Amino acid sequence: MADDLFLRSLREEPIDRLPVWIMRQAGRYLPEYRAVRAKHSFLEVCRTPELAAEVTLQPVDRLGVDAAILFSDIMVPLLPSVPGLDFAPGPTLPAPVASVEGLRPPSSVEEAGFVYRTIEMLRRSLSVPLIGFAGTPATLATYMVEGGSAKHFTAFRRLLHRDPGAARRLLGWLEELTLRYVTLQIEAGAQAIQLFDSWGGELSPADFERFCAPALRRIVAAIRAKGVPAIYFARGPLRDVGATASGVDWTVDLAAARARGPVQGNLDPAVLFAPPEAVAAAVAAMTAGIARTGLVVNLGHGIWPETPVEGARAFVRAAQSVPVA
Amino acid sequence: MADDLFLRSLREEPIDRLPVWIMRQAGRYLPEYRAVRAKHSFLEVCRTPELAAEVTLQPVDRLGVDAAILFSDIMVPLLPSVPGLDFAPGPTLPAPVASVEGLRPPSSVEEAGFVYRTIEMLRRSLSVPLIGFAGTPATLATYMVEGGSAKHFTAFRRLLHRDPGAARRLLGWLEELTLRYVTLQIEAGAQAIQLFDSWGGELSPADFERFCAPALRRIVAAIRAKGVPAIYFARGPLRDVGATASGVDWTVDLAAARARGPVQGNLDPAVLFAPPEAVAAAVAAMTAGIARTGLVVNLGHGIWPETPVEGARAFVRAAQSVPVA
Repeated sequence: MADDLFLRSLREEPIDRLPVWIMRQAGRYLPEYRAVRAKHSFLEVCRTPELAAEVTLQPVDRLGVDAAILFSDIMVPLLPSVPGLDFAPGPTLPAPVASVEGLRPPSSVEEAGFVYRTIEMLRRSLSVPLIGFAGTPATLATYMVEGGSAKHFTAFRRLLHRDPGAARRLLGWLEELTLRYVTLQIEAGAQAIQLFDSWGGELSPADFERFCAPALRRIVAAIRAKGVPAIYFARGPLRDVGATASGVDWTVDLAAARARGPVQGNLDPAVLFAPPEAVAAAVAAMTAGIARTGLVVNLGHGIWPETPVEGARAFVRAAQSVPVA
Repeated sequence: MADDLFLRSLREEPIDRLPVWIMRQAGRYLPEYRAVRAKHSFLEVCRTPELAAEVTLQPVDRLGVDAAILFSDIMVPLLPSVPGLDFAPGPTLPAPVASVEGLRPPSSVEEAGFVYRTIEMLRRSLSVPLIGFAGTPATLATYMVEGGSAKHFTAFRRLLHRDPGAARRLLGWLEELTLRYVTLQIEAGAQAIQLFDSWGGELSPADFERFCAPALRRIVAAIRAKGVPAIYFARGPLRDVGATASGVDWTVDLAAARARGPVQGNLDPAVLFAPPEAVAAAVAAMTAGIARTGLVVNLGHGIWPETPVEGARAFVRAAQSVPVA
């Protein structure tokens, strides 16, 4: 049963302990990851199934987390259609893309075959469930319109109001691409899909409903129609898009979120810099009163590169030791 | 009555139209502000009462907003105690400050006499209420520990968990400084105080209660004890610190926030890039069902430097035209 603890909790079936994994659990805080990256660029690792699978497995081996997540980046499905896209390690584009004019059709995502081969390879060796993932259309659009990482991420919000027609065409293109991409991941063997909405979650409620929510509901429904749970993670307030579970950031009260449905979250990544006893106390406080099925313990955002491995280990141990009601 | 519409709405007294002002309303989007800044540095403008008063008045004259806010920066009260602090225009420090060791006492804020003289000067010429302001201890600490603006603002959250004792001492020093600073502003004539908590609002609920809320409640109580309304603006979820009104960001549902008490907010600054009719429609949608006393219309964050003046004007006109229930 331990091997599908994560999936059972998402489905609200009985569990004997809480499942836990960590957003960005394969990453720079792990010495074995840095060793791989010393020899290969970020994109090389993503594009080489053997390497992507190797780093995906590292935190499972090192920390004993209850789920693995495909090593990749939300921008990877855009590689076939956005020439010059690179990672440093944040995405960089040769120029901002604010229009679908000149983009190849969304079906180009089929050419990202290395992703699907990585998933197939991982399913043969993993003892815990494998999570696939995608960025949401609004979050992908944010990076595209911004031309990569930027300090304020305001260009996409400006486009929504200055030229809503162009924004809608870009979001529609991204919706179709995302639908195809998650479907291909599921067909390759992904057992859950997490949708990352770092920036769509920062839209106003009105703009979120107007530009994002309908597409998210269609994507979530397509995932669930294949019998696979969909986790919708967003920065900012909790918003209902029909997902199996909500991934919530560290500013949200987890008990209040759990009262609305299954949740995943949400310790502040900063807590992992505290001594192990303090990490355990924070996990206990966070799960108090909600330590039962329908909860997946995680951080409220990706683990920081400077995090001591001991902090990550203390977090996983603490989550796996919480008495389940 | 129009001259104190803003104060009446905060006190939930009858109003005949909604008051409106704009966070960062004196700023780079205004050509007359850029003309002053072409001749003087940001800090020169802050430190010269005639110049600070001039730019404070610009949006009142240009847009007809219902309140003025002192032109300054949340880091200004630290000038007497943090040598080398400058603005580019975001704050820059020669080195991060993560400890109170070596800092001058909080009473050094009395030396920022130009702030109090600017307030006195403004009160003699203004026909609308004057808002003073301060950063919260956690937000000031974020910039100090980070050494200025940084992309991720994670150093202070890390300090909270790595060395909570040092964080508490720094926050205690900042609480005393902030208490003195807002008191001096009120004594000089500030008719309301807005507390800006850009970063404290991004702490987890547990850390917010542990490290921030008690100090905020004391600061708010001190302001209100002087008969002056306190507006608590934070990024992120709405949190109760006993303020007269909550300033809420654009991701929050304004009607839900209003149901909990008087509010100020919260149009996405991006909307001001839309045509005037779309700006008016967004203001109408945002205030629907809550257009009555206890509401101050504002943006949900500071106006962006690239904003067309026409967008700002459309916003103010739209807010002032909403029928009040």
